[in-house]
Amino acid sequence: MAAKFLSRGPLDPQDAKWTKLVLSTYKDPNGVERTWESAERQTRPDNCEIDGVGIVTILNKESGPELLLQKQYRPPIDKVVIEVPAGLIDPNETVEQCAVRELKEETGYVGVAEQTSSVMYNDPGFCNTNLNMVHVRVDMSLPENQNPKPELEENEFIECFSVPLATLFEEMKKLEQQGYAIDARVGTIAEGIELARRFKL
Amino acid sequence: MAAKFLSRGPLDPQDAKWTKLVLSTYKDPNGVERTWESAERQTRPDNCEIDGVGIVTILNKESGPELLLQKQYRPPIDKVVIEVPAGLIDPNETVEQCAVRELKEETGYVGVAEQTSSVMYNDPGFCNTNLNMVHVRVDMSLPENQNPKPELEENEFIECFSVPLATLFEEMKKLEQQGYAIDARVGTIAEGIELARRFKL
Repeated sequence: MAAKFLSRGPLDPQDAKWTKLVLSTYKDPNGVERTWESAERQTRPDNCEIDGVGIVTILNKESGPELLLQKQYRPPIDKVVIEVPAGLIDPNETVEQCAVRELKEETGYVGVAEQTSSVMYNDPGFCNTNLNMVHVRVDMSLPENQNPKPELEENEFIECFSVPLATLFEEMKKLEQQGYAIDARVGTIAEGIELARRFKL
Repeated sequence: MAAKFLSRGPLDPQDAKWTKLVLSTYKDPNGVERTWESAERQTRPDNCEIDGVGIVTILNKESGPELLLQKQYRPPIDKVVIEVPAGLIDPNETVEQCAVRELKEETGYVGVAEQTSSVMYNDPGFCNTNLNMVHVRVDMSLPENQNPKPELEENEFIECFSVPLATLFEEMKKLEQQGYAIDARVGTIAEGIELARRFKL
Protein backbone atom coordinates (compact mmCIF):
# COMPACT_ATOMS: atom_id res chain seq x y z
CA MET A 1 0.00 0.00 0.00
CA ALA A 2 1.28 3.48 -0.86
CA ALA A 3 1.32 6.49 1.44
CA LYS A 4 -1.55 8.93 0.83
CA PHE A 5 -1.26 12.69 1.08
CA LEU A 6 -4.19 14.31 2.92
CA SER A 7 -3.55 18.03 3.42
CA ARG A 8 -1.00 20.79 3.98
CA GLY A 9 -1.34 24.00 5.96
CA PRO A 10 0.67 26.68 7.74
CA LEU A 11 2.67 25.59 10.79
CA ASP A 12 2.67 27.87 13.83
CA PRO A 13 6.25 28.13 15.16
CA GLN A 14 4.85 27.52 18.66
CA ASP A 15 3.81 24.05 17.50
CA ALA A 16 7.00 23.25 15.53
CA LYS A 17 9.16 20.52 17.04
CA TRP A 18 11.47 19.75 14.11
CA THR A 19 11.84 22.95 12.09
CA LYS A 20 12.16 26.69 12.62
CA LEU A 21 12.51 29.93 10.67
CA VAL A 22 15.25 32.39 11.56
CA LEU A 23 16.26 35.89 10.48
CA SER A 24 19.96 36.67 10.10
CA THR A 25 21.29 40.22 10.19
CA TYR A 26 24.59 40.96 8.48
CA LYS A 27 26.62 43.70 6.86
CA ASP A 28 27.23 43.14 3.15
CA PRO A 29 30.72 43.73 1.68
CA ASN A 30 29.81 47.42 1.15
CA GLY A 31 28.97 47.80 4.85
CA VAL A 32 25.20 47.96 4.26
CA GLU A 33 23.14 46.23 6.97
CA ARG A 34 20.76 43.60 5.53
CA THR A 35 18.57 40.71 6.71
CA TRP A 36 18.07 37.20 5.29
CA GLU A 37 15.33 34.66 6.08
CA SER A 38 16.17 30.98 6.35
CA ALA A 39 15.01 27.65 7.73
CA GLU A 40 16.74 25.28 10.16
CA ARG A 41 16.24 21.89 11.77
CA GLN A 42 15.71 21.86 15.56
CA THR A 43 17.36 18.43 15.81
CA ARG A 44 21.07 19.24 15.41
CA PRO A 45 22.83 18.12 18.62
CA ASP A 46 24.43 20.79 20.84
CA ASN A 47 28.10 21.39 20.02
CA CYS A 48 27.63 19.71 16.64
CA GLU A 49 27.99 21.49 13.32
CA ILE A 50 26.36 18.78 11.21
CA ASP A 51 22.75 17.60 10.80
CA GLY A 52 23.34 14.23 9.27
CA VAL A 53 25.03 11.91 6.83
CA GLY A 54 24.46 10.56 3.36
CA ILE A 55 25.89 7.13 2.67
CA VAL A 56 27.70 6.13 -0.52
CA THR A 57 27.81 2.34 -0.67
CA ILE A 58 28.93 0.54 -3.80
CA LEU A 59 27.81 -3.07 -4.14
CA ASN A 60 30.25 -5.07 -6.24
CA LYS A 61 27.97 -7.18 -8.39
CA GLU A 62 29.22 -9.61 -11.04
CA SER A 63 27.84 -7.28 -13.72
CA GLY A 64 29.71 -4.28 -12.26
CA PRO A 65 29.57 -1.78 -9.39
CA GLU A 66 26.12 -0.62 -8.27
CA LEU A 67 25.13 2.33 -6.06
CA LEU A 68 22.89 1.39 -3.11
CA LEU A 69 19.74 3.52 -3.20
CA GLN A 70 16.34 3.63 -1.57
CA LYS A 71 12.79 4.66 -2.31
CA GLN A 72 11.13 6.62 0.48
CA TYR A 73 7.88 8.59 0.61
CA ARG A 74 8.59 12.20 1.57
CA PRO A 75 5.56 14.18 2.81
CA PRO A 76 7.15 17.62 2.11
CA ILE A 77 6.87 16.92 -1.63
CA ASP A 78 4.24 14.12 -1.61
CA LYS A 79 6.45 11.90 -3.75
CA VAL A 80 8.48 8.75 -3.37
CA VAL A 81 12.09 9.93 -3.59
CA ILE A 82 15.18 8.13 -4.90
CA GLU A 83 17.85 8.80 -2.25
CA VAL A 84 21.07 7.44 -0.85
CA PRO A 85 20.67 5.93 2.64
CA ALA A 86 20.88 8.81 5.12
CA GLY A 87 20.12 9.85 8.64
CA LEU A 88 20.44 12.43 11.38
CA ILE A 89 23.31 12.40 13.85
CA ASP A 90 22.62 11.31 17.41
CA PRO A 91 24.28 13.23 20.28
CA ASN A 92 27.94 12.22 20.85
CA GLU A 93 28.11 10.17 17.66
CA THR A 94 30.72 10.70 14.92
CA VAL A 95 29.57 11.00 11.32
CA GLU A 96 31.24 7.66 10.58
CA GLN A 97 29.43 5.93 13.45
CA CYS A 98 26.18 7.50 12.28
CA ALA A 99 26.73 6.25 8.71
CA VAL A 100 27.45 2.66 9.77
CA ARG A 101 24.44 2.67 12.16
CA GLU A 102 22.01 4.16 9.65
CA LEU A 103 23.17 1.84 6.88
CA LYS A 104 22.47 -1.15 9.11
CA GLU A 105 19.09 0.18 10.24
CA GLU A 106 17.85 1.26 6.82
CA THR A 107 19.32 -1.44 4.57
CA GLY A 108 20.51 -4.28 6.82
CA TYR A 109 24.04 -4.12 5.40
CA VAL A 110 26.99 -4.19 7.81
CA GLY A 111 29.82 -2.01 6.58
CA VAL A 112 32.97 -0.08 7.42
CA ALA A 113 33.32 3.71 6.94
CA GLU A 114 36.33 4.28 4.72
CA GLN A 115 36.11 7.87 3.45
CA THR A 116 34.32 11.04 4.56
CA SER A 117 33.67 13.92 2.19
CA SER A 118 33.68 17.65 2.81
CA VAL A 119 30.68 18.97 4.75
CA MET A 120 28.05 19.73 2.12
CA TYR A 121 25.28 22.31 2.43
CA ASN A 122 22.04 21.23 0.77
CA ASP A 123 20.62 24.65 -0.17
CA PRO A 124 22.62 27.35 1.62
CA GLY A 125 20.63 30.33 0.26
CA PHE A 126 17.51 28.86 1.90
CA CYS A 127 18.51 26.75 4.91
CA ASN A 128 21.49 25.65 6.99
CA THR A 129 20.95 21.89 6.62
CA ASN A 130 24.11 19.97 5.84
CA LEU A 131 25.64 16.54 5.77
CA ASN A 132 28.82 14.58 5.33
CA MET A 133 28.79 12.00 2.57
CA VAL A 134 30.41 8.91 4.11
CA HIS A 135 31.62 6.10 1.88
CA VAL A 136 30.83 2.81 3.61
CA ARG A 137 32.37 -0.38 2.26
CA VAL A 138 30.16 -3.46 2.37
CA ASP A 139 31.84 -6.87 2.03
CA MET A 140 29.20 -8.90 0.22
CA SER A 141 31.00 -12.16 1.03
CA LEU A 142 30.35 -11.85 4.79
CA PRO A 143 27.56 -14.08 6.15
CA GLU A 144 25.77 -11.05 7.70
CA ASN A 145 25.50 -9.44 4.27
CA GLN A 146 24.03 -12.47 2.48
CA ASN A 147 20.44 -11.67 3.34
CA PRO A 148 20.39 -8.14 4.82
CA LYS A 149 17.37 -7.29 6.97
CA PRO A 150 16.59 -3.61 7.67
CA GLU A 151 15.53 -2.62 11.20
CA LEU A 152 13.09 0.17 10.40
CA GLU A 153 11.26 2.30 12.95
CA GLU A 154 7.48 2.03 12.93
CA ASN A 155 7.14 5.29 10.97
CA GLU A 156 9.83 4.41 8.37
CA PHE A 157 8.90 2.80 5.04
CA ILE A 158 11.99 2.33 2.92
CA GLU A 159 12.63 0.06 -0.05
CA CYS A 160 16.26 -0.63 -1.01
CA PHE A 161 17.58 -1.27 -4.49
CA SER A 162 20.76 -0.66 -6.43
CA VAL A 163 21.58 0.79 -9.84
CA PRO A 164 24.71 0.24 -11.98
CA LEU A 165 27.00 3.27 -11.67
CA ALA A 166 27.56 3.10 -15.42
CA THR A 167 23.88 3.79 -16.19
CA LEU A 168 22.93 5.89 -13.13
CA PHE A 169 22.14 9.00 -15.19
CA GLU A 170 19.79 7.19 -17.61
CA GLU A 171 18.15 5.26 -14.75
CA MET A 172 17.38 8.51 -12.89
CA LYS A 173 15.67 9.84 -16.04
CA LYS A 174 13.61 6.63 -16.28
CA LEU A 175 12.63 6.69 -12.60
CA GLU A 176 11.57 10.34 -12.94
CA GLN A 177 9.37 9.40 -15.91
CA GLN A 178 7.80 6.71 -13.71
CA GLY A 179 6.79 9.38 -11.16
CA TYR A 180 9.62 9.16 -8.65
CA ALA A 181 11.42 12.29 -7.43
CA ILE A 182 15.21 12.46 -7.58
CA ASP A 183 17.19 13.63 -4.56
CA ALA A 184 19.79 16.21 -5.63
CA ARG A 185 22.63 14.33 -3.93
CA VAL A 186 21.90 11.29 -6.14
CA GLY A 187 21.17 13.33 -9.25
CA THR A 188 24.43 15.26 -9.09
CA ILE A 189 26.50 12.12 -8.44
CA ALA A 190 24.98 10.92 -11.73
CA GLU A 191 25.92 14.25 -13.37
CA GLY A 192 29.49 13.89 -12.15
CA ILE A 193 29.77 10.39 -13.61
CA GLU A 194 28.47 11.69 -16.96
CA LEU A 195 30.97 14.59 -16.95
CA ALA A 196 33.84 12.20 -16.20
CA ARG A 197 32.82 10.00 -19.12
CA ARG A 198 32.15 12.83 -21.58
CA PHE A 199 35.54 14.42 -20.89
CA LYS A 200 37.35 11.08 -20.47
CA LEU A 201 38.75 12.09 -17.07
CA MET B 1 35.82 43.75 2.23
CA ALA B 2 34.08 40.62 3.52
CA ALA B 3 30.48 40.35 4.68
CA LYS B 4 30.07 40.42 8.47
CA PHE B 5 27.53 38.39 10.42
CA LEU B 6 25.74 40.38 13.13
CA SER B 7 22.97 38.30 14.71
CA ARG B 8 20.33 35.62 14.23
CA GLY B 9 16.94 35.28 15.87
CA PRO B 10 13.53 33.68 15.45
CA LEU B 11 11.44 34.84 12.50
CA ASP B 12 7.71 35.42 13.06
CA PRO B 13 5.78 33.88 10.12
CA GLN B 14 3.77 37.12 9.95
CA ASP B 15 6.98 38.92 8.99
CA ALA B 16 8.32 36.26 6.59
CA LYS B 17 8.36 37.30 2.93
CA TRP B 18 10.58 34.58 1.46
CA THR B 19 10.13 31.46 3.58
CA LYS B 20 7.37 29.57 5.40
CA LEU B 21 6.82 26.49 7.53
CA VAL B 22 4.06 24.03 6.66
CA LEU B 23 2.56 20.91 8.22
CA SER B 24 1.61 18.02 5.95
CA THR B 25 -0.90 15.38 7.00
CA TYR B 26 -0.72 11.97 5.34
CA LYS B 27 -1.58 8.32 5.82
CA ASP B 28 1.46 6.07 5.97
CA PRO B 29 1.52 2.76 4.03
CA ASN B 30 -0.12 1.04 7.02
CA GLY B 31 -3.01 3.51 6.95
CA VAL B 32 -1.86 5.38 10.09
CA GLU B 33 -2.47 9.15 9.95
CA ARG B 34 0.75 11.15 10.59
CA THR B 35 2.04 14.71 10.26
CA TRP B 36 5.37 16.06 8.95
CA GLU B 37 6.88 19.54 9.34
CA SER B 38 8.74 21.16 6.46
CA ALA B 39 9.94 24.46 5.03
CA GLU B 40 9.15 26.10 1.69
CA ARG B 41 10.08 29.15 -0.33
CA GLN B 42 7.31 31.73 -0.93
CA THR B 43 8.84 32.70 -4.28
CA ARG B 44 7.89 29.77 -6.53
CA PRO B 45 5.73 31.19 -9.36
CA ASP B 46 2.08 30.10 -9.59
CA ASN B 47 1.57 27.07 -11.83
CA CYS B 48 5.27 26.27 -11.61
CA GLU B 49 6.67 23.14 -9.97
CA ILE B 50 10.28 24.34 -9.78
CA ASP B 51 12.06 26.92 -7.60
CA GLY B 52 15.17 27.47 -9.66
CA VAL B 53 18.08 26.23 -11.68
CA GLY B 54 21.68 25.25 -11.16
CA ILE B 55 23.99 25.82 -14.09
CA VAL B 56 26.65 23.37 -15.26
CA THR B 57 29.05 25.24 -17.52
CA ILE B 58 32.30 23.67 -18.65
CA LEU B 59 34.99 26.08 -19.84
CA ASN B 60 37.30 24.44 -22.35
CA LYS B 61 40.72 25.68 -21.29
CA GLU B 62 43.95 24.65 -23.00
CA SER B 63 44.88 22.66 -19.90
CA GLY B 64 41.56 20.79 -19.93
CA PRO B 65 37.86 21.23 -19.07
CA GLU B 66 37.03 23.37 -16.04
CA LEU B 67 33.76 23.70 -14.09
CA LEU B 68 32.54 27.29 -13.70
CA LEU B 69 31.97 28.03 -10.00
CA GLN B 70 31.36 30.98 -7.74
CA LYS B 71 32.06 32.16 -4.23
CA GLN B 72 29.08 33.75 -2.51
CA TYR B 73 28.47 34.76 1.11
CA ARG B 74 25.38 32.96 2.44
CA PRO B 75 23.86 34.47 5.61
CA PRO B 76 21.98 31.25 6.60
CA ILE B 77 25.33 29.60 7.36
CA ASP B 78 27.56 32.70 7.73
CA LYS B 79 30.09 31.29 5.28
CA VAL B 80 31.29 31.96 1.77
CA VAL B 81 29.99 29.01 -0.27
CA ILE B 82 31.43 27.33 -3.36
CA GLU B 83 28.44 26.91 -5.69
CA VAL B 84 27.50 26.51 -9.31
CA PRO B 85 25.84 29.60 -10.79
CA ALA B 86 22.15 29.39 -9.90
CA GLY B 87 18.98 31.39 -9.59
CA LEU B 88 15.24 31.42 -9.03
CA ILE B 89 12.76 31.15 -11.90
CA ASP B 90 10.83 34.25 -12.92
CA PRO B 91 7.12 33.90 -13.79
CA ASN B 92 6.53 32.55 -17.32
CA GLU B 93 10.17 31.67 -17.85
CA THR B 94 11.40 28.18 -18.84
CA VAL B 95 14.23 26.60 -16.86
CA GLU B 96 16.49 26.94 -19.92
CA GLN B 97 15.70 30.66 -20.28
CA CYS B 98 16.33 31.10 -16.56
CA ALA B 99 19.71 29.33 -16.80
CA VAL B 100 20.93 31.44 -19.75
CA ARG B 101 19.72 34.67 -18.05
CA GLU B 102 21.25 33.86 -14.67
CA LEU B 103 24.54 32.76 -16.21
CA LYS B 104 24.79 36.10 -18.02
CA GLU B 105 23.83 38.11 -14.92
CA GLU B 106 26.06 36.27 -12.46
CA THR B 107 29.11 35.49 -14.59
CA GLY B 108 28.87 37.61 -17.76
CA TYR B 109 29.12 34.54 -20.01
CA VAL B 110 26.69 34.22 -22.93
CA GLY B 111 25.71 30.60 -23.50
CA VAL B 112 23.24 28.16 -25.00
CA ALA B 113 21.24 25.64 -22.91
CA GLU B 114 21.96 22.21 -24.30
CA GLN B 115 20.79 19.67 -21.69
CA THR B 116 18.40 19.71 -18.73
CA SER B 117 18.62 17.16 -15.93
CA SER B 118 15.87 15.57 -13.89
CA VAL B 119 14.20 17.81 -11.31
CA MET B 120 16.31 17.47 -8.18
CA TYR B 121 15.09 17.94 -4.61
CA ASN B 122 17.70 19.51 -2.35
CA ASP B 123 16.64 17.99 1.00
CA PRO B 124 13.21 16.39 0.60
CA GLY B 125 12.87 15.22 4.22
CA PHE B 126 13.15 18.85 5.33
CA CYS B 127 11.91 21.14 2.55
CA ASN B 128 10.36 21.14 -0.92
CA THR B 129 13.04 23.28 -2.63
CA ASN B 130 14.15 21.91 -5.96
CA LEU B 131 15.96 22.78 -9.15
CA ASN B 132 16.83 21.62 -12.62
CA MET B 133 20.49 21.40 -13.43
CA VAL B 134 20.86 22.97 -16.87
CA HIS B 135 24.01 22.42 -18.88
CA VAL B 136 24.86 25.67 -20.67
CA ARG B 137 27.49 25.63 -23.38
CA VAL B 138 29.75 28.69 -23.54
CA ASP B 139 31.72 29.28 -26.73
CA MET B 140 34.90 30.91 -25.45
CA SER B 141 35.88 32.02 -28.96
CA LEU B 142 32.95 34.47 -29.23
CA PRO B 143 33.85 38.15 -28.76
CA GLU B 144 31.20 38.55 -26.01
CA ASN B 145 32.90 35.83 -23.97
CA GLN B 146 36.42 37.30 -24.16
CA ASN B 147 36.02 39.56 -21.17
CA PRO B 148 32.77 38.57 -19.43
CA LYS B 149 31.22 41.21 -17.17
CA PRO B 150 28.64 40.13 -14.58
CA GLU B 151 25.55 42.32 -14.10
CA LEU B 152 24.98 41.85 -10.37
CA GLU B 153 22.14 43.33 -8.37
CA GLU B 154 23.10 45.75 -5.62
CA ASN B 155 22.68 43.06 -2.94
CA GLU B 156 24.64 40.39 -4.85
CA PHE B 157 28.37 39.83 -4.22
CA ILE B 158 29.63 36.97 -6.33
CA GLU B 159 33.14 36.04 -7.40
CA CYS B 160 33.54 33.65 -10.35
CA PHE B 161 36.32 31.13 -10.84
CA SER B 162 36.77 27.73 -12.41
CA VAL B 163 38.33 24.44 -11.33
CA PRO B 164 39.64 21.59 -13.49
CA LEU B 165 37.09 18.76 -13.54
CA ALA B 166 39.95 16.31 -13.12
CA THR B 167 40.89 17.72 -9.68
CA LEU B 168 37.47 18.97 -8.51
CA PHE B 169 37.34 16.58 -5.53
CA GLU B 170 40.77 17.55 -4.19
CA GLU B 171 40.10 21.26 -4.80
CA MET B 172 36.88 21.10 -2.77
CA LYS B 173 38.82 19.55 0.14
CA LYS B 174 41.39 22.38 -0.13
CA LEU B 175 38.74 25.11 -0.28
CA GLU B 176 37.01 23.61 2.77
CA GLN B 177 40.32 23.71 4.66
CA GLN B 178 40.59 27.38 3.72
CA GLY B 179 37.23 28.06 5.41
CA TYR B 180 34.84 27.95 2.47
CA ALA B 181 31.64 25.91 2.63
CA ILE B 182 30.85 23.43 -0.14
CA ASP B 183 27.41 23.37 -1.74
CA ALA B 184 26.12 19.79 -1.94
CA ARG B 185 25.36 20.07 -5.67
CA VAL B 186 29.06 20.84 -6.34
CA GLY B 187 30.35 18.36 -3.77
CA THR B 188 28.37 15.44 -5.17
CA ILE B 189 29.35 16.24 -8.78
CA ALA B 190 32.92 15.87 -7.48
CA GLU B 191 31.96 12.56 -5.81
CA GLY B 192 30.48 11.30 -9.08
CA ILE B 193 33.67 12.14 -10.97
CA GLU B 194 35.72 10.25 -8.36
CA LEU B 195 33.42 7.21 -8.57
CA ALA B 196 33.69 7.17 -12.37
CA ARG B 197 37.47 7.25 -12.13
CA ARG B 198 37.79 4.71 -9.34
CA PHE B 199 35.61 2.20 -11.17
CA LYS B 200 36.91 3.14 -14.63
CA LEU B 201 33.40 3.73 -15.98
